[in-house]
Amino acid sequence: LKLLTQARDLKRRKARDRSELFVAEGIRVSEELLRAGIPARGALITSQLTSSPRGRALLEQLRARVPEVLEVDERDFSDAADTDTPQGVLLIAEVPPRSAATPLPAGVKLRVLLLDGVQDPGNVGTMVRTAAAFGAAATIALPGTVDLWNAKVVRSAMGAHFSHLAFHASFEELTDFVARENLVVWGTEAGAPVIGDPDNIPERLAIAFGNEGAGMSPRIEMLAARTAGIATAPGVESLNVAVAAGILLHDLSN
Amino acid sequence: LKLLTQARDLKRRKARDRSELFVAEGIRVSEELLRAGIPARGALITSQLTSSPRGRALLEQLRARVPEVLEVDERDFSDAADTDTPQGVLLIAEVPPRSAATPLPAGVKLRVLLLDGVQDPGNVGTMVRTAAAFGAAATIALPGTVDLWNAKVVRSAMGAHFSHLAFHASFEELTDFVARENLVVWGTEAGAPVIGDPDNIPERLAIAFGNEGAGMSPRIEMLAARTAGIATAPGVESLNVAVAAGILLHDLSN
Repeated sequence: LKLLTQARDLKRRKARDRSELFVAEGIRVSEELLRAGIPARGALITSQLTSSPRGRALLEQLRARVPEVLEVDERDFSDAADTDTPQGVLLIAEVPPRSAATPLPAGVKLRVLLLDGVQDPGNVGTMVRTAAAFGAAATIALPGTVDLWNAKVVRSAMGAHFSHLAFHASFEELTDFVARENLVVWGTEAGAPVIGDPDNIPERLAIAFGNEGAGMSPRIEMLAARTAGIATAPGVESLNVAVAAGILLHDLSN
Repeated sequence: LKLLTQARDLKRRKARDRSELFVAEGIRVSEELLRAGIPARGALITSQLTSSPRGRALLEQLRARVPEVLEVDERDFSDAADTDTPQGVLLIAEVPPRSAATPLPAGVKLRVLLLDGVQDPGNVGTMVRTAAAFGAAATIALPGTVDLWNAKVVRSAMGAHFSHLAFHASFEELTDFVARENLVVWGTEAGAPVIGDPDNIPERLAIAFGNEGAGMSPRIEMLAARTAGIATAPGVESLNVAVAAGILLHDLSN
């Protein structure tokens, strides 16, 4: 029953930070985790998992690759899980050892996504998924941003940050990273000028998206060479931050 | 206490369909609802609402414009509310009388968003918000799509569908609507060809986004003149549907 206690415990950010473990829920996310080669310490399953061929295939993989696979009843499982519909599988896995010390490819065009206090786990997960989809080199979660290894973030990212380079950094670490990697930082804001002439887009660009309510932090405003926006219809205040990031990362990926 | 019972009851789609009422939660959404002129039947508030100047200003408006304003304790309120952090205000309001019978502006370029079985309320709300932001003429929720007047959809839309034309329709109603309004229908799919030469984009275009897991319905596939996609990095399966809709509605709004 140690796995059950551990999974429940890992709902708290402090427990994740201390143990460097996180919980991944659901069939698809578990498949992605194994595919990415992230070490899993244990798996909790229910009989529900074996009700589909895909679930049975996953269980076979888990038995071969995860040290401890524990079948529990629905009640214990839903107590340990974060989701309402957890599909009968949940893995306890190691947070990949990544940080601002990780070097990016040198001398090539690249994009980095900065999460500057983005608080909604669904938004953060979707933004990591989008950054991976458009080939961004990294996603950096700055202070005030929800934990990248929160169960809902992991679920919304659909396993994207198992292979995409995503990590937390302080503003000081970011400043050093930006200097070392020769990055230009751009901020974003509703109503700011749209991205114009493609020739003026830096080869190595980090683009920051601020908090859902309060926008960018003063630290990023100071660091940013410019602020970019997206043209919207009159009277509409703003876009969802994950949608805005999708549009700009897409435009900048061409 | 009739308002409390009613708010709780309106969590069920059947109750909303029968009564043609819905619940709007939070300060900003309530402000938007009043601004859009949607008739509210009643308001539930807690003492929390009066803790900010913005909340007090809203309460003044509610007292002037809503027939019944009832202050309740935190426990009763959170029982009636759908959110964890409902900000001490919740309105019971009339679903705007809109349907496929509503005519669109004639003879001008326009975009219509079709929700073809999109199930996540956060995705649907975000998509309605995005459609409004890019000046789409309407959003049509097709069978299998979550109720547009679900509390979480209303919250994620940030009040967008109080003024944006959004309604449910059957596939038959859609077919008639498409013919009457001279619309070309496009589907979307991960991996489908990207939108190319701008000259080939129809003036009056309805673009459909399918279910998060299963994609487009056979009915929309049959109706669609083509299927459009978004180029992503190799190995990344797909984008979140609300992000994909944001990118394509943005590209098509130019």
